[in-house]
Amino acid sequence: MNVLGVDIGGSNSVVAVADQSGSIFTHKQILTPNVLGPNLNIDMILTAACQIIQETGKSIDAIGIGCGGPLDRRTGTLHKVANLPSWDGICLTEIFEDITGAPAFLDNDATAAAMGEAAFGSGKGLANFVYLTVSTGIGGGIIINGKPYRGHGENAGEIGHTKIIPDGPPCKCGDRGCLETLASGTAIARIAKEGLADNPDSILNDALNERDGLTARSVSVAAKKRDIYANKIWSDAMYHLGLGVANVVNILNPELVVIGGGVASAGEMLFKPVTEVVNQRAMKALADDVKIAPSHHGDLIGVMGAIAVALEGMQG
Amino acid sequence: MNVLGVDIGGSNSVVAVADQSGSIFTHKQILTPNVLGPNLNIDMILTAACQIIQETGKSIDAIGIGCGGPLDRRTGTLHKVANLPSWDGICLTEIFEDITGAPAFLDNDATAAAMGEAAFGSGKGLANFVYLTVSTGIGGGIIINGKPYRGHGENAGEIGHTKIIPDGPPCKCGDRGCLETLASGTAIARIAKEGLADNPDSILNDALNERDGLTARSVSVAAKKRDIYANKIWSDAMYHLGLGVANVVNILNPELVVIGGGVASAGEMLFKPVTEVVNQRAMKALADDVKIAPSHHGDLIGVMGAIAVALEGMQG
Repeated sequence: MNVLGVDIGGSNSVVAVADQSGSIFTHKQILTPNVLGPNLNIDMILTAACQIIQETGKSIDAIGIGCGGPLDRRTGTLHKVANLPSWDGICLTEIFEDITGAPAFLDNDATAAAMGEAAFGSGKGLANFVYLTVSTGIGGGIIINGKPYRGHGENAGEIGHTKIIPDGPPCKCGDRGCLETLASGTAIARIAKEGLADNPDSILNDALNERDGLTARSVSVAAKKRDIYANKIWSDAMYHLGLGVANVVNILNPELVVIGGGVASAGEMLFKPVTEVVNQRAMKALADDVKIAPSHHGDLIGVMGAIAVALEGMQG
Repeated sequence: MNVLGVDIGGSNSVVAVADQSGSIFTHKQILTPNVLGPNLNIDMILTAACQIIQETGKSIDAIGIGCGGPLDRRTGTLHKVANLPSWDGICLTEIFEDITGAPAFLDNDATAAAMGEAAFGSGKGLANFVYLTVSTGIGGGIIINGKPYRGHGENAGEIGHTKIIPDGPPCKCGDRGCLETLASGTAIARIAKEGLADNPDSILNDALNERDGLTARSVSVAAKKRDIYANKIWSDAMYHLGLGVANVVNILNPELVVIGGGVASAGEMLFKPVTEVVNQRAMKALADDVKIAPSHHGDLIGVMGAIAVALEGMQG
C-alpha cells in the first residue's frame, strides 16, 4: 500500500509519497503564503502532489491531509481555521479524491502529528503522550492508550488556548492570556517588536531590515549571541511555554511530551529551559515521569502525521 | 454481591454497605479529625464498618476504599497524603481484609468519585468527563472512553496543582499559584482571614467566634447575604476555579464536569459563576460542548466512588 501525505500550513505545505511503514519515497515542500488565498495555494499543492506521484511511479491507495482546525473530519471540510481564514467551507478530501481517485482523510494537524509520532516516531509503543506544535500558533495532539484522543466534540488538545496569565495579551480566539499569545512564533516576534524602540542597542533592530523581518527565529538567534533584550524576550516565552507544559503534565501525567513546529527548531534553546520549568513547577512525581523531547522527524513530522492519517483511515 | 465502601477524608469519613447496583442499604458518617492520628481514626472507621455490616446482616464480597493520594493502588498503601501526613506507609487494604476476610481495593478519592459518577451518577453512559472535588484541597478524576484515566505513573488529574496565577500564593505542593491555593475551601478561608482586619464592617468578623471559626462556608453564606467583603473573596475564588475548569475543558473537550466536595455544596453560588467563566474563557466550541453540574449523590459521592472501586476490583 502506498499513500500520499499532505501537510497544509499557513506559510509552507509539504507533500510526500510513502509506503505503509511510513518510509518516504519522495517529498516536496511548497511555499503557500496565506495572502495568495485558497484556490492558488491548493492548485500549487495539487501540482506538487501530482509531480511526486509521477516521479515515484507509485499508485496511491489513500491520501491523508493534516491541516489546522477547526475542521470536520467526517466530511473532510475546513471551518474557520485561525491561520487560513479564507479557506472556510472548503472540502479538501473531495478535491484530492477527484484528482487521484483514492480515498482521502482529513485530520487536525496537531492530532495528525501525534499520530505520526505514535506510528513512526518516539511515541511508538507508548500508551500516553502529548504532541505540541509551537509555530504560527500552538496546537496539541493527545494520545491515550495508543490512540488519538479527540474529546466529546473532536476538539480536544487546545493547549495553545489554556490561560497562562489570566489578564494577559488578547488572543485571536477572542480571549486573553492564552499560551499562544505568549510563546508561539507569532507571539515571540510581536513581543520583541513591541519593546524594540526602547532597546536601540539590541541586534534585533537589524533583523527588521532582513527579508523575513523580525521573526521568532531572529529572537532565538540573537539570544544565542547573548543579546540582552533578545534573551529576555526568549526566556520569558520559554518560561510561559514551560508553565503550559507543566499544566498538561499535571493533568495528564504523560510519559512523553514531543514539541515540534518552527519554534522548536531552536533545539536546546527551547528544550533546556522548558524542561527546567516543568521540573520546577509540575508535581515532582509527574515531572519525574515525563520526558520532553523534539520530534525525530524534525520538519517532516507534519507530513508523517498526514501519512499516519491516511493509514489509519484505510484501517477503518 | 454486596460490598463495603469506605471514603476516608481529612475531617469526615463515610462507610456504606451496598449491592452491586450501587444501592446503599445503610451508611454511617464518622468524624475523623486529623489531629487524632491514623490509629484512632482507623479504629473508629472499622468500628462503624463492622456496625453497619452487622445491622444489614449482609456478607461482604469486596471492599472499596477511597482516600487522598498519593497512594499505591497495587499494594493498597498510602504515601505522604497531603491532608493525612501521619498516615504515610499504612496499608489500608490489609487492615480491612483482616477484619472482614473480603478482598479490599484502594484508589485515589477523586478517581473513585469519577468512577462513582460513571457507574451510578450523571456520568453514566458518557465516554469522556471529569470529576473535580473542591474541598480541603482540589482533586480531579478523569474518565476517558468510560474508564478511569490514570496516566503513566497513575497520578493524572492533579488539576488542583495547575497554575492559575504563576506567581501566586505558595502551595503545600512546594510550588505557587496553584488552583488549590486560590479556590479550595482552605484557600477561601485563608484569603478571607488575611483581609479581615482591613474590613471591620464585614459580618465575616462574627464567624471567627463560631464553633468552626471562619470557613469557606462562612464566606459563601456571608456573600449570599450581600456582605461586600465576603462577596469579593467568593467571586475571586469562583473566577479562579472557572479558569481552572476552562483550561481542563480546552485540553480535554469533556462532555461533563461534575464538581463535588464541601465547597460545591454552595450550589448555584458556585455553579453559576464557574459556568459563566468557562463560557467566557474556554474556546466557544468546547464551552458549548460541556455541562458543569453538581453530583447527583451530593455528600455521598465519595462513598459511591468507593463502592465503584470495590465493584471494579472484583471485575479484575
